[in-house]
Amino acid sequence: MDIAAYMADIGQQARAAATLVARSTTAVRNQALLATANALDAARAELATANAKDLEDGQARGLDRAMLDRLELTPERIDTMIEGLRQVATLPDPVGEITDMTYRPSGIQVGKMRVPLGVIGIIYESRPNVTVEAASLCLKSGNAAILRGGSESICSNQAIARCLAQGLAEAGLPETAVQVIKTTDRAAVGELITMPAYVDVIVPRGGKGLIERISRDAKVPVIKHLDGICHVYIDSHADPEKAINVAVNAKTQRYGTCNTMETLLVDAEIAGDMLPLLATEFLAKGVELRGCERTREVIEAVAAEESDWEAEYLAPILAVRVVDGLDGAIEHINRYSSQHTDSIVTENYTRARRFLTEVDSASVMVNASTRFADGFEYGLGAEIGISTDKIHARGPVGLEGLTSQKYVVFGDGHIRN
Amino acid sequence: MDIAAYMADIGQQARAAATLVARSTTAVRNQALLATANALDAARAELATANAKDLEDGQARGLDRAMLDRLELTPERIDTMIEGLRQVATLPDPVGEITDMTYRPSGIQVGKMRVPLGVIGIIYESRPNVTVEAASLCLKSGNAAILRGGSESICSNQAIARCLAQGLAEAGLPETAVQVIKTTDRAAVGELITMPAYVDVIVPRGGKGLIERISRDAKVPVIKHLDGICHVYIDSHADPEKAINVAVNAKTQRYGTCNTMETLLVDAEIAGDMLPLLATEFLAKGVELRGCERTREVIEAVAAEESDWEAEYLAPILAVRVVDGLDGAIEHINRYSSQHTDSIVTENYTRARRFLTEVDSASVMVNASTRFADGFEYGLGAEIGISTDKIHARGPVGLEGLTSQKYVVFGDGHIRN
Repeated sequence: MDIAAYMADIGQQARAAATLVARSTTAVRNQALLATANALDAARAELATANAKDLEDGQARGLDRAMLDRLELTPERIDTMIEGLRQVATLPDPVGEITDMTYRPSGIQVGKMRVPLGVIGIIYESRPNVTVEAASLCLKSGNAAILRGGSESICSNQAIARCLAQGLAEAGLPETAVQVIKTTDRAAVGELITMPAYVDVIVPRGGKGLIERISRDAKVPVIKHLDGICHVYIDSHADPEKAINVAVNAKTQRYGTCNTMETLLVDAEIAGDMLPLLATEFLAKGVELRGCERTREVIEAVAAEESDWEAEYLAPILAVRVVDGLDGAIEHINRYSSQHTDSIVTENYTRARRFLTEVDSASVMVNASTRFADGFEYGLGAEIGISTDKIHARGPVGLEGLTSQKYVVFGDGHIRN
Repeated sequence: MDIAAYMADIGQQARAAATLVARSTTAVRNQALLATANALDAARAELATANAKDLEDGQARGLDRAMLDRLELTPERIDTMIEGLRQVATLPDPVGEITDMTYRPSGIQVGKMRVPLGVIGIIYESRPNVTVEAASLCLKSGNAAILRGGSESICSNQAIARCLAQGLAEAGLPETAVQVIKTTDRAAVGELITMPAYVDVIVPRGGKGLIERISRDAKVPVIKHLDGICHVYIDSHADPEKAINVAVNAKTQRYGTCNTMETLLVDAEIAGDMLPLLATEFLAKGVELRGCERTREVIEAVAAEESDWEAEYLAPILAVRVVDGLDGAIEHINRYSSQHTDSIVTENYTRARRFLTEVDSASVMVNASTRFADGFEYGLGAEIGISTDKIHARGPVGLEGLTSQKYVVFGDGHIRN
């Protein structure tokens, strides 16, 4: 198989389909989503067969339990995919929205119209349900999509792709509006991320290694998410009850998510009072504490090393550091944070305001758990990922992040002097 | 000189300065702009000496007249630089604006805060006034800047850099907030565009060759502008007077700008009536016409070749093509346009609406000259460039294009369930 030719062909088809998707009405795109949901419901047997093949191959290749679990398409997961498609269909259409329409002194009227980006390439790992999720968000926002899932889920993804093709066809949209790459050859990824003529943006979803590799080699803009090293800072003016609630929730509500707190910062002024209360809560939840020297003068904790401040544990482990007031907290955060989500607990107006302004992260919070940094919690309706970049989109990326704005100008024969 | 070490040092200094600029008040940043204006005014003699040296070296190196003209810092051009700084100081500060603040069902309040991008690298060619213009826009929008001008304007740029440093220092900002690269070694550009740790975005300004090279090699996001192949389409339902006014203005108001019309499309239904009227106007202005076969059946014109549809003449030359209605026009535009600016002249509501929706360009216009596609005409107050990209910013890029938005979340001890 000539991978370069295969990918160029996919790219050309996607570019052509993108024009038709961009012009399609809201109703047609919603119809495609709902028809895909029905197609998935009707294809449960085929999905199960394809998934069983992937699981069998995975076991033969010695995939670990966690990986096999992510790979599995249970009936409940198929229900969730179907429900997800129906929900995306109910979201408002971002395409075509016109804003900021004003008259200029010259007499022209200028505003902005929200438009699709064009062709979106999405590269992800084992979970086959991402195929449906990514396709639905691209389609809803008027884009064509090229999807490249993990090699271990190839059969499941192709079965899902057939349902997508059926849904698109039923709505009168080209089947090439969503293409799932049929080869597991790694060279296909290399082509996908270096075809600026056919692909407008790449969204990689997966481990840090994958994302770093793609960012390094891409010749197409990448909306990426690296680490989630999130902080909660408990200020000396914090309400102790709020502080404990927020810190415990931020760490323990779920351990494996990118918006989970990984380092707790405590103002030296209240460390003596607060740390024992916090330690009791965390120990009751089975969280291992790794503390700086000053922390270990107050509570029992493993000695933290420099690497702990840079760690995304994704596990019941928490780094704890005593800092000298807000300045110390901001200094630590701007040095070690992955610019994902950081929160201050304080009742002090000026300190809250300074934290919001001076912490350079995609989400900055006051008296709220970092776990809220999420497209659904923010009201975006859906989330294609969380960006730790600064260009184009920061933080949770919803449908709007898959669009851009062009200028529209209305005149009446206006000319420039 | 170790260029890599020199550039890494500049990058580190810029990153450190960016934090301080981002935190500075509107008043302080405006003070720096006004103090720079005063410093330039006081340094007219030094600027003249430095510029004379550049001009002398340029002549010795055999630079052509146009290049030497662009290089020259006349007293009037120094006035314009000073006036530009004072105008940027009067613009509204984009930084810190909070929008879309709403309560979510969970009780948290979520909104967006506009924030600087961080460090902006600007690469440009001969005109030394770009040094002041670029620096002022970066500074106003709360960013640090690393500027790399043309090697032929090195002495002028360093003299301007001293005025910028003085202005920054007077306002209490770090002089490293704006750094003008002191070496003419090309390797410095190679370093600048591959330091994602220190540089958040690159804005190249110059010829297409420069911009393509930078886009190809950059490891940092690039806000770029390639061609300006702009179209005016005269629909069969156009008002003839508006059509002639718009077409003539779009081509002849200035020939060398990127928003100048390069190809005129005329609906076949009215070509017989309109082309002779248009030809008379264009010939009176000395514009050479290059027409398709159908055009040449009606008026005298040089035979257009395929390359004419792809040409950015920047000269008194116009390609003319007869197309079959709106569909033919959109097909031509979406194939040959550089997605910069395209305009339809029509009185027909449905065709105007289709043109706006289906033409995928940064600016789409109805009954207005393409020459309006400009940051000042659009009310942006200033313009760092015009983007033909889709990601982050499309069309004229003002101060807002040098910023991003982060999420701010207000809670009262809120935790996630």
